[in-house]
Amino acid sequence: MVERVYNFSPGPAVLPYEVLEQASRDILNFQGTGMGLIEVSHRSKEFMAVTDQAEALLRELMRIPDNYKVLFLQGGASSQFFMVPMNLLGTGKKACYLNTGTWAKKAIKEAKLFGEVEVAYSSEEQNFVRVPQASEYQISDDAEYLYLVSNNTIYGTQFPEFPKADKMLVCDMSSDILSRTFDVSQFGLIFAGAQKNLGPAGVTIVVIREDLLDRTPPNTPTMLSYKTHADKGSMFNTPPCFAVYIVGEVLKWLKKTGGVEAIEKINREKAALLYAKIDESAYYRGHAEVASRSLMNVTFNLPTKELEAKFVAEATAIGLNGLKGHRSVGGCRASIYNAFPRDGVVKLVDFMRKFEKNNPA
Amino acid sequence: MVERVYNFSPGPAVLPYEVLEQASRDILNFQGTGMGLIEVSHRSKEFMAVTDQAEALLRELMRIPDNYKVLFLQGGASSQFFMVPMNLLGTGKKACYLNTGTWAKKAIKEAKLFGEVEVAYSSEEQNFVRVPQASEYQISDDAEYLYLVSNNTIYGTQFPEFPKADKMLVCDMSSDILSRTFDVSQFGLIFAGAQKNLGPAGVTIVVIREDLLDRTPPNTPTMLSYKTHADKGSMFNTPPCFAVYIVGEVLKWLKKTGGVEAIEKINREKAALLYAKIDESAYYRGHAEVASRSLMNVTFNLPTKELEAKFVAEATAIGLNGLKGHRSVGGCRASIYNAFPRDGVVKLVDFMRKFEKNNPA
Repeated sequence: MVERVYNFSPGPAVLPYEVLEQASRDILNFQGTGMGLIEVSHRSKEFMAVTDQAEALLRELMRIPDNYKVLFLQGGASSQFFMVPMNLLGTGKKACYLNTGTWAKKAIKEAKLFGEVEVAYSSEEQNFVRVPQASEYQISDDAEYLYLVSNNTIYGTQFPEFPKADKMLVCDMSSDILSRTFDVSQFGLIFAGAQKNLGPAGVTIVVIREDLLDRTPPNTPTMLSYKTHADKGSMFNTPPCFAVYIVGEVLKWLKKTGGVEAIEKINREKAALLYAKIDESAYYRGHAEVASRSLMNVTFNLPTKELEAKFVAEATAIGLNGLKGHRSVGGCRASIYNAFPRDGVVKLVDFMRKFEKNNPA
Repeated sequence: MVERVYNFSPGPAVLPYEVLEQASRDILNFQGTGMGLIEVSHRSKEFMAVTDQAEALLRELMRIPDNYKVLFLQGGASSQFFMVPMNLLGTGKKACYLNTGTWAKKAIKEAKLFGEVEVAYSSEEQNFVRVPQASEYQISDDAEYLYLVSNNTIYGTQFPEFPKADKMLVCDMSSDILSRTFDVSQFGLIFAGAQKNLGPAGVTIVVIREDLLDRTPPNTPTMLSYKTHADKGSMFNTPPCFAVYIVGEVLKWLKKTGGVEAIEKINREKAALLYAKIDESAYYRGHAEVASRSLMNVTFNLPTKELEAKFVAEATAIGLNGLKGHRSVGGCRASIYNAFPRDGVVKLVDFMRKFEKNNPA
């Protein structure tokens, strides 16, 4: 095995090394075809099997009911910000959005192009340190859906559980899909860019309830209608084959690891180790309110900006990479997605302890 | 080296083996970072350099003038079918389209959602056996652009040279970009899905004249405006990193091979070998008219459907893969893109000769 660093990057992010090893072989000769993985026709039986298996595994691991379609799309989560309202809203129709961070805000901006948007909650004035409890916002009776971002990568907040609303939920799960169990049937639509828990950048997963496929207004461009892709099994045009393949391999790894229940247990343990260190003294201060803390992205500050810079530099020097926080929060961020190894968290906690001792405030 | 077949697939298609070897290594450990290529942040200096170099090489190899932007987008060429008119047309405005095959037809359908479309030429009634000469169609004075597909993968036709029109050209070059020299300054916009001459499926190259970036109507979704991506160097959202990386590696290979002039010479020679065999007897019949023949996709029929099936099966058995023609043309298709080796063409011609001898009509 080559020397690996611990990669705390928020995305693209660490992937299971066995997935990379498999890809490294398949890219030269895929399943003995004498062609590399990215040279094989997307309509070949070999590649169709890749897509079918990725979908089947996702259905199994997330327990997706039969009346939902799974789509592999391009354009990133950012394209879902407009595709959701383009397909599900319409002039005079209303949707309810919870503004819990940068990605929610961008989604709100796009939704306003297609219908009426009701921002039922916002933590923007508190620099997004929290997500709301259900009692803190009201959903209009005539709202088509309640939109939320389950985990806010930049701020390190996460809905500890999903709202039990009468409305169907639409959720951006880009940064925590497959990290914990939940009931898909509450949702009309779930989407996730792959580059955190699922695979490489370049493919976006959409899980959509079948009856919603008929809501798309006429004169929507063919490629922007969910139905186009649902009807053709995500093969209306050439899919991002390599990215879909990696997603399939990551799902195989997740199943072998014990599935979502098992990874959730590991994720909770990893996060608990880090938050315990943060709470141990006043030296490290968590950005997120305790009740809104994310299991995926742990954001924290040190006593001064200078110490933060020194912390990141020294961590990098010992193979703890990607800890610099997002510019809108500053400080540090440890992204510890599904594939991030527990050992890396232990090493970080140990480093935090030593750094605090050696660099008193 | 692993055993390689000759892959005549129309796309995803054969890539230079040295590119696959490099990717196979980088996917495990990218430039000694201790992280795999697809785990590295798109904002890291290592990955930014990948994007910058890919763009610089494309500019150099295609001789792209400074007043053009190069974008790396997602969604395939199929997304350009609507993005072009969404950004460049508008209610009451007109564009002129040449209908030379399936992909042109799909582009026409999407353009009609955004403005008036004048189909100035169509070879549909002749099953798209030809592309027009400039004398065969008229362009309205008030047309915003002339749209054409430079190479028609399915039918094996190609514009031998680009129209010398007063209008700016908009061109889908998905299946022949970088295969021959031409003057970019005739074009307002060029796009190409990567999975033929450029790399893997999952990234689309757009080359757009800068002044066109301001034509996008207000209320266009952010992700669908070319300006969004131009202003952010294709980093408005996470790009399809792996696909962009492979494009960069393919461009390095092309430069080493001698650039577009050198590959054009090789492409002409490869195609000439195949067409000479087709013209040698009445046994093989080319689908495309001689003056419209493609250098990239050579389409031909045998005396009977049974012989065609036998031909494809026997070819596959000796490592000549992917020769089955598209269902709308039938027969055989040999796709011989930039990375397809001359040796494979020689082997195919030899096989064609033997097959004809052993299987008289």
